[in-house]
Amino acid sequence: AICAALLGEPAERPLQGMKVLISAGPTREPLDPVRYLTNRSSGKMGYALAEAARDMGASVILVSGPTQLPPPAQVDLVRVETAAEMYEAVIARAEASDIYIGAAAVADYTPAETQSEKIKKRGDTATLVLRKTRDILAEVAALEKRPFTVGFAAETVDLEAYALDKLARKNLDMIAANWVGQAEGGFDSDRNALEVFWKGGREALAMTGKKRLADRLTALIAERLQAGVVVR
Amino acid sequence: AICAALLGEPAERPLQGMKVLISAGPTREPLDPVRYLTNRSSGKMGYALAEAARDMGASVILVSGPTQLPPPAQVDLVRVETAAEMYEAVIARAEASDIYIGAAAVADYTPAETQSEKIKKRGDTATLVLRKTRDILAEVAALEKRPFTVGFAAETVDLEAYALDKLARKNLDMIAANWVGQAEGGFDSDRNALEVFWKGGREALAMTGKKRLADRLTALIAERLQAGVVVR
Repeated sequence: AICAALLGEPAERPLQGMKVLISAGPTREPLDPVRYLTNRSSGKMGYALAEAARDMGASVILVSGPTQLPPPAQVDLVRVETAAEMYEAVIARAEASDIYIGAAAVADYTPAETQSEKIKKRGDTATLVLRKTRDILAEVAALEKRPFTVGFAAETVDLEAYALDKLARKNLDMIAANWVGQAEGGFDSDRNALEVFWKGGREALAMTGKKRLADRLTALIAERLQAGVVVR
Repeated sequence: AICAALLGEPAERPLQGMKVLISAGPTREPLDPVRYLTNRSSGKMGYALAEAARDMGASVILVSGPTQLPPPAQVDLVRVETAAEMYEAVIARAEASDIYIGAAAVADYTPAETQSEKIKKRGDTATLVLRKTRDILAEVAALEKRPFTVGFAAETVDLEAYALDKLARKNLDMIAANWVGQAEGGFDSDRNALEVFWKGGREALAMTGKKRLADRLTALIAERLQAGVVVR
């Protein structure tokens, strides 16, 4: 199916017949019914990637944490709230997918205990014990029947070093890295720039609107996937 | 000014000439540039109260944490992010206000330290040390030249007991309490119901749209304020 899709279609629909799984948005890790721990993420990049993959001919499943974005047309939207729910939703669909793009800002730690009643204020200080969440990206990349696996890295320092380390350590096929906490791009912004790395190659995608950036990254994924299929 | 406003205006504009200060929405307490602790709050109730007070003739300042709501027309909107910023914005404007309605879901604990760089994952568990934030409502109620001070209580159990305790302990003029984690109302919902308490009185405002509920609560505030002015 991959070969037919890659070889039989015009260049404008390079993902025709492919199944693309994308995770997007933040997760919310509840301390109690009122309080939660979360990450800054608007979901805009992941939603733009879903639309780009759809427009390139793919059948797209978008697993999304809480966002304010409208559901993209002709995309199968699966809403989740916590990192554990996102893990379950992604892992259940990963082996049936040709490509997985992990664009969500998944909480890497979650409260060790969630209280069912609202916690009342006590002392001047409090200690919150957190436990690590499961690493969705690494577990998808470690599946026996793994999709082409693309991760993101949002960093405030040492972007390239962290991105290359994450690419190798999690055995990803590609990683798209961006600066956060800068004057422009990231988080709630409509614009962003990416440094994309894969084994033996890299490409810089210059600052632009997230929609156009998503088109370019998706085209690059299709190109690398095709190159990989030919080599294997 | 209070007497002129209360006595000289028709009933439809019972807050004519009054200055009303309202806080709304959640706060975000950053652990680092990416992660933060927050509370569930859409800001809808506070924004609806700002519109209701404006429509009853008041000059309104709305101090708002991050929400997805459009700024209400003819309201002075002050955007803040953290509990500390909300404290500063409210305290600076409280003594010049006739009424303060604390409708924000202010984080009561904040990370003891905020990292300027993104924290890297380490062990399987992590400990987060939190310190209590300043109590905006209690500090406004303790000001020498205090406004008529209205608090909110969102509870999952023992609603009346907690509300009455908060009313007395923080020396509020009124408290509006609502259940959270129920089938209907609270948080992101467009509807809610309130149990309103003051010294020597109470009134139940039945489940309805937040806009209508805000009109009723604001009318009740004007009524109690007028009763208080007569007595003093």
